[in-house]
Amino acid sequence: MKKIINDPHDVVPEMVNGMTRAYPQYIEKIEGTEAVVRSDKDSMKGKVGIVSGGGSGHEPTHAGYVGEGMLSAAVCGQVFTSPTPDQIYAAIKAVNQGQGVFLVVKNYSGDVMNFDMAKDLASMDNIPVKSIVVDDDIAVENSLYTQGRRGVAGTIFMHKILGAVAQQGASLDEIDALAHKVLPNIKTIAVALSAATNPEVGKPGFVLKDDEIEYGVGIHSEPGYRREKIKPSKELVEELVGKLNNEMHLDGNKKYACLVNGMGATPLMEQYIFANDVLNKLQEFNIKPSFMKIGNYMTSIDMAGISLTLFEIKDAKWLDYLNYPVKTIAW
Amino acid sequence: MKKIINDPHDVVPEMVNGMTRAYPQYIEKIEGTEAVVRSDKDSMKGKVGIVSGGGSGHEPTHAGYVGEGMLSAAVCGQVFTSPTPDQIYAAIKAVNQGQGVFLVVKNYSGDVMNFDMAKDLASMDNIPVKSIVVDDDIAVENSLYTQGRRGVAGTIFMHKILGAVAQQGASLDEIDALAHKVLPNIKTIAVALSAATNPEVGKPGFVLKDDEIEYGVGIHSEPGYRREKIKPSKELVEELVGKLNNEMHLDGNKKYACLVNGMGATPLMEQYIFANDVLNKLQEFNIKPSFMKIGNYMTSIDMAGISLTLFEIKDAKWLDYLNYPVKTIAW
Repeated sequence: MKKIINDPHDVVPEMVNGMTRAYPQYIEKIEGTEAVVRSDKDSMKGKVGIVSGGGSGHEPTHAGYVGEGMLSAAVCGQVFTSPTPDQIYAAIKAVNQGQGVFLVVKNYSGDVMNFDMAKDLASMDNIPVKSIVVDDDIAVENSLYTQGRRGVAGTIFMHKILGAVAQQGASLDEIDALAHKVLPNIKTIAVALSAATNPEVGKPGFVLKDDEIEYGVGIHSEPGYRREKIKPSKELVEELVGKLNNEMHLDGNKKYACLVNGMGATPLMEQYIFANDVLNKLQEFNIKPSFMKIGNYMTSIDMAGISLTLFEIKDAKWLDYLNYPVKTIAW
Repeated sequence: MKKIINDPHDVVPEMVNGMTRAYPQYIEKIEGTEAVVRSDKDSMKGKVGIVSGGGSGHEPTHAGYVGEGMLSAAVCGQVFTSPTPDQIYAAIKAVNQGQGVFLVVKNYSGDVMNFDMAKDLASMDNIPVKSIVVDDDIAVENSLYTQGRRGVAGTIFMHKILGAVAQQGASLDEIDALAHKVLPNIKTIAVALSAATNPEVGKPGFVLKDDEIEYGVGIHSEPGYRREKIKPSKELVEELVGKLNNEMHLDGNKKYACLVNGMGATPLMEQYIFANDVLNKLQEFNIKPSFMKIGNYMTSIDMAGISLTLFEIKDAKWLDYLNYPVKTIAW
């Protein structure tokens, strides 16, 4: 393991310190936790708080999306490990303005359990909390750490949409209704060229041969659905868009947002080339995305690979929310 | 070589297509070239054009910085290869609004020669062109491809500063004077954990052992100044800040901007940890950066490594220019 770190057990606190100290205009630490909250408290006044979080190792997710117009706070667990209920509850308390707090949880058993327990803690203090569990990864049903489908890169579309409406003053019930309306329209699938190495473990989660890839791998190196020899980008796109189409029934009369997401060690060069092939393939369906982003948005430490998210924009307002201005490190 | 590409000879056009198609709100291709220009032509009206470019493989540099408030156009050469004079000249013509054009060139012999030839072509057409050659890398004097010092990640501070003043209506002479005033205050140094693999070459530029790093490597895998065993992040910072201090004489009474730049395959986790150590080390000099960014800003394809740039802010206006709003893919 060759990494730019100090003690492998200190990666999360050191990373959170690095982010909060480098970007004090956006975020600050919640004392006694590894959670971060907006430093511009005025932008939260009178609004519903939006809190997300989960295991670390997915940077810039989640702390990179905290700021005006997006998340109110993010809770950073140990690497690939859910944050504890008390840390989540500290974030809920830090953002609560009397209008309630909404939690965006990725579908992993540990996260679901701990965010639920934090919700219970909040209810004992009469803070109204609602939540959504994001399960956008269509690769497999059930997985290591997950009942049902996993929550992956498409989660940042949820952060963005809910952050925009919360900033504009939506109520907790309105946010909850919107989240559940949006969720079934966000679908993601990935391909991995290599696994991530968790610094505390010291070796990769699995090993692929020099010429091998795996479709459908999760963001914690959970197994995908098929290994085969590396193929040209356009054939990878054929496979991934094919799977998304089976699920979403792509239609040139509908509108879509698209996220091409690098897993951490994949150069932007490859992401842009892959994106070009995605756009070619979508053109066959007569689809030109209404909104698109390419980059390292939800990574898996140093995994090489790419995920592709499509989000069917069923309501024109959703596009406005995606384009709503934010002040964050990483959106 | 396991990469998400198609034909290795097509990486640049496919990448440029991917970027321009995904982000039509910011950039568009200049027909018949691999150069990109702002799609919002109104934002260039009556302003001096700022053009940069060079070999590809440094994404999001340079095309990611084209947009209102920053570059007017960027010319994308083949991987690690200077763009040709005719492509550079096409970009000059595309952005010229009668106020002249300013070129930001990184110090590599091929780039210096080709941007100079493009300048000559422009002068034959009576387009006033001035330029600066950025040489911020303090690692070595002279190098493969370079007389003098190399131009690396600090170049994006030059793009940002000049883009801001050009947007605010500065004249070509004013921009030229500012560029030359700013240049000696930007210094960068890097450490590599692995070399980049140019897709057209198919193998890494050099090979480091599993536990080995090299200080001072360039963005085209040019040799650095020392190899040794991997050390904790804080010791890498000790070395790099030490070198910058020898050069810049760091002083707590002065102001600095700081860029921690990932080389392509280095996860953000490591960049944030490294940044935290940089902030600790700068604190010993009583320095807290006035401006800071962490991320993949000037990469070397899939190199693992980090560069550290410090920029002494000699004039408070420079900080305003760094904070001036832009509309780009990647700033």
